[in-house]
Amino acid sequence: MSQTSPQAPAGAYRSTDRTVPTRSRERASYDRELVHAILDEAYVCHLGFVRDGAPVVLPTLYGRVGERLYVHGSTGSRPLRAAGQADPGLPVCLTVTHVDGLVLARSAFHHSINYRSVVVHGIAHQVTDPEEKRTALDALVDHVVPGRSGDSRPANAKELAATAVLRLDLDEVSAKVRSGGPNDEPEDLGLPHWTGVLPLRTGYGEPLPADDLDPSVAVPDYLTVL
Amino acid sequence: MSQTSPQAPAGAYRSTDRTVPTRSRERASYDRELVHAILDEAYVCHLGFVRDGAPVVLPTLYGRVGERLYVHGSTGSRPLRAAGQADPGLPVCLTVTHVDGLVLARSAFHHSINYRSVVVHGIAHQVTDPEEKRTALDALVDHVVPGRSGDSRPANAKELAATAVLRLDLDEVSAKVRSGGPNDEPEDLGLPHWTGVLPLRTGYGEPLPADDLDPSVAVPDYLTVL
Repeated sequence: MSQTSPQAPAGAYRSTDRTVPTRSRERASYDRELVHAILDEAYVCHLGFVRDGAPVVLPTLYGRVGERLYVHGSTGSRPLRAAGQADPGLPVCLTVTHVDGLVLARSAFHHSINYRSVVVHGIAHQVTDPEEKRTALDALVDHVVPGRSGDSRPANAKELAATAVLRLDLDEVSAKVRSGGPNDEPEDLGLPHWTGVLPLRTGYGEPLPADDLDPSVAVPDYLTVL
Repeated sequence: MSQTSPQAPAGAYRSTDRTVPTRSRERASYDRELVHAILDEAYVCHLGFVRDGAPVVLPTLYGRVGERLYVHGSTGSRPLRAAGQADPGLPVCLTVTHVDGLVLARSAFHHSINYRSVVVHGIAHQVTDPEEKRTALDALVDHVVPGRSGDSRPANAKELAATAVLRLDLDEVSAKVRSGGPNDEPEDLGLPHWTGVLPLRTGYGEPLPADDLDPSVAVPDYLTVL
């Protein structure tokens, strides 16, 4: 799922005051293909917004269609209500992070993690066009399991009415990546501590059929290739 | 690392307007041991704060000491500077999420994920007491690899001066957990789609020694038991 399409838009996102980090600038990237790959590989994002002057950060599913991200929720949920009420929309920050490894340096100070993250700043808008809403909901399902939207019952009118969808354009976006081994100080190289990287991997277990599944229904191909 | 200590404080966190969800209230919990277990198992949190009226969400390492969380960063980093300047501190929301499985329902609408999350609201304060700062930095290293702070060079005066630490008390806290299979509508039970859960697991790869590690230094026990 981390493959980027050869049709991905070429080039890079613009950098802005808030997407240029104050530190470790060499880890920042504005490359569209890298950003798409990081976004497409994760399951949840952390969506931040401001309520009563204070920050709120909630984990939520999301989907990507080209240069747009979509999140969804009940029409009664707080951020989705807020985005519907706010004009011209809801200021959000949407962040996705993969932890790839634990970096053990000889000094406590240089301990770190290897990671890939994307931070998106922007204004989220409620999707009102029915066709865009259906496209977004398919993208949300296919983000969890590619191909799944074609093998499930689509939302009916009642479900569509109960679901609010927010759109966030990929415009003010940056990725940040740390990889490789520890960066110990020269004077620490002789210390007796083990040093290196402990890689982390996410894998799939065996699919667990629902209790009420007809045993004649086979596990679909799109699950066995994951 | 997900074990809670038998010495963990008994009881539950108070619930507040912002820790009682508007939906799926049955998934919410204020149990201290559950909150600690979820916090202790993750590597990064997503820290939200408000800058120039807009939300910012950044991934960062953290550590827990009893009922206090600590995050750290350069004294030059934006949120840490902000917390040092702000009186009486920096309003933050700190969120930790584990994705445990993908939930495939017969209907697109009921697709979901199994997850465990913790959301902490509060005011972050810069740690100024040198002893608390050292304790916090040890906790940050031991959060990544338990036992590691005792097997690395502690921060020296220069490193301590370059590192800012923020404290966030566990006070206004909630956990949210979804587990189990899909919840399809009764009228969908006869549909021909496979339905169930695809579990996700995080595991460790083989430790990768740094290029400059003396080959006579063995992999420590605290890594082999992970």
